[in-house]
Amino acid sequence: MIKTDILIIGAGPTGLFAVFEAGLLQLKCHLIDALPQAGGQCSEIYPKKPIYDIPGYPEVLAGDLVDNLMEQIKPFQPGFTLGERAETIEKLDDGSFIVTTNKGTKHHAPVVAIAGGLGSFEPRKPLLENLGKYEDNGVAYMIKEPEIYRDKKVLIAGGGDSALDWSIFLADVAKEVTLVHRRNEFRGALDSVEKVQQLKNEGKINLITPAEVVALKGEDQLEKVTVKNTSTSEETDVEVDNFIPLFGLSPKLGPIANWGLEIEKNAIKVDNTYDYQTNIPGIYAIGDVNTYPGKLKLILCGFHEATLMCQSAYQKIFPDKKYVMKYTTVGGVTGFDGSKKEAPKAVVKAID
Amino acid sequence: MIKTDILIIGAGPTGLFAVFEAGLLQLKCHLIDALPQAGGQCSEIYPKKPIYDIPGYPEVLAGDLVDNLMEQIKPFQPGFTLGERAETIEKLDDGSFIVTTNKGTKHHAPVVAIAGGLGSFEPRKPLLENLGKYEDNGVAYMIKEPEIYRDKKVLIAGGGDSALDWSIFLADVAKEVTLVHRRNEFRGALDSVEKVQQLKNEGKINLITPAEVVALKGEDQLEKVTVKNTSTSEETDVEVDNFIPLFGLSPKLGPIANWGLEIEKNAIKVDNTYDYQTNIPGIYAIGDVNTYPGKLKLILCGFHEATLMCQSAYQKIFPDKKYVMKYTTVGGVTGFDGSKKEAPKAVVKAID
Repeated sequence: MIKTDILIIGAGPTGLFAVFEAGLLQLKCHLIDALPQAGGQCSEIYPKKPIYDIPGYPEVLAGDLVDNLMEQIKPFQPGFTLGERAETIEKLDDGSFIVTTNKGTKHHAPVVAIAGGLGSFEPRKPLLENLGKYEDNGVAYMIKEPEIYRDKKVLIAGGGDSALDWSIFLADVAKEVTLVHRRNEFRGALDSVEKVQQLKNEGKINLITPAEVVALKGEDQLEKVTVKNTSTSEETDVEVDNFIPLFGLSPKLGPIANWGLEIEKNAIKVDNTYDYQTNIPGIYAIGDVNTYPGKLKLILCGFHEATLMCQSAYQKIFPDKKYVMKYTTVGGVTGFDGSKKEAPKAVVKAID
Repeated sequence: MIKTDILIIGAGPTGLFAVFEAGLLQLKCHLIDALPQAGGQCSEIYPKKPIYDIPGYPEVLAGDLVDNLMEQIKPFQPGFTLGERAETIEKLDDGSFIVTTNKGTKHHAPVVAIAGGLGSFEPRKPLLENLGKYEDNGVAYMIKEPEIYRDKKVLIAGGGDSALDWSIFLADVAKEVTLVHRRNEFRGALDSVEKVQQLKNEGKINLITPAEVVALKGEDQLEKVTVKNTSTSEETDVEVDNFIPLFGLSPKLGPIANWGLEIEKNAIKVDNTYDYQTNIPGIYAIGDVNTYPGKLKLILCGFHEATLMCQSAYQKIFPDKKYVMKYTTVGGVTGFDGSKKEAPKAVVKAID
């Protein structure tokens, strides 16, 4: 059982910044995210895209923003349960919560903050009869550990940035990379499209277009996929160890929708007059996942909501303590790891 | 008469960021600030101090944050009335406002956003009988244009960072710099104290301690100040062109307190359930100057409040238009100066 002060569901920018504000109040955080890494959409969907409306950054790449947030919260040593989706919540008699993931990992905390963005990102799956049989036996929808594909025969399906970028990356890792797409045209960064063209010309990527995977074969483990040329209708079996359909991710509020929270237009209603708490005391919702009158789904609003949530969480966890806010410029930042950052102190010194 | 869409009182970080969010909505802003430059406290009081709680910045100097905000809002060409204090407000029949400064500059706008921080920073003045007579005739409490002191005889009084830093700066500009402080000890950055010691040793700064200025003399223009050694009680006249007492700035809500706004604990009450509007429709208060249940005086909260204020201002200015929010990552940023920033577009390209 993982124990923490504030259990944060969702490790996007809002969830990450909550760790910092909680840390200033000496509260520890643990984050759960269905994606294999922190950063939410910023890392998974558009890490190389510039954001222009983060205050104080005329321009910042989404991936760099996440890196900076990870650096900012480092002193507060957050815990992470990644690649697992928060599935169920149970309220104990003392008002605290146990949250269990789809893989059975249990987390216990007095306060839960849902920073789930648009929901957990679930891969869009191809419609293939026996797909489920091969999941974790050769079929995967996200690449978490590229090294497991070393010297394997990998077939990637898809026509967007993920399919292009992973084909390029695995061309140097796998024994064989086949890229299947139902059109001849790919949609992605110009660089990526040109690089795939070059690797194809060099024989390092085996390209099959316009085509789609129509069948999976193999005893227990995936052994072959049948690829159908959609222009000629000709079918060919390709020997593979791995089939990775990269058809994009689609956000779903998912199991959280069944936690008894008030939901409106696929978002969680919160009390914006005070602390962004939901209808269940002790459960907060911050960032894009919440809704209230005038709500804007902007990262900078999530930062504010996370900050007010932490103040309220502190009062809930320590009802008898009074927290006196100290500006970081004045008091510095003291990490749980013993680190201390602070402004150079003024000296009082005679001049003679 | 200066005309704009949103008239912002206070050019600190919150007021500056409001220009950006307004710009995304195609609204123009003009800012009034009593200080001679933009940035509020960050520029005037602690430009060299690190701030640790700006989201996405593990550490940023206050002055750099202001520089970055100025860069971020540049495409939206804000106007500035600096070194003047917003004094009176008048509501016209059409619901718009005219704000007049202490120097008589008039501004006309349908929406006013007060981003006044702790108030307008007023210099602490020494208690000298005929001080008023020499204001603008040799006596100044802030240095706006260092060049006007070129080849002048300047006497600075004070023992903190401002007194130290300006003495150092003017040592290279003025004909003569005298620094008077009532103690032998100065309080400031170690570097600054050591630099003043060095300049004193080199004869470039004339240091008189422990001492204070007790009288001002001169026909119309300041000609001499009388400096009293507080240890020996001996008095000396020093010939000067300028006397600059730098005894710090003290924030005062000032004339805004008389605008008919609901005030609570020296801050302006706002509707935090929606748009941070005050009790007077069309006047908003954002950042440290406002108060509501759970209010935190943090820069990051001001950013959020500024953003929601702009949305509400848009509806007020264009009651019949519906604004559809577009993410900057998707839609880019189009400046009033014709500039355009946007993410590199994806291509759709065949691989053959």
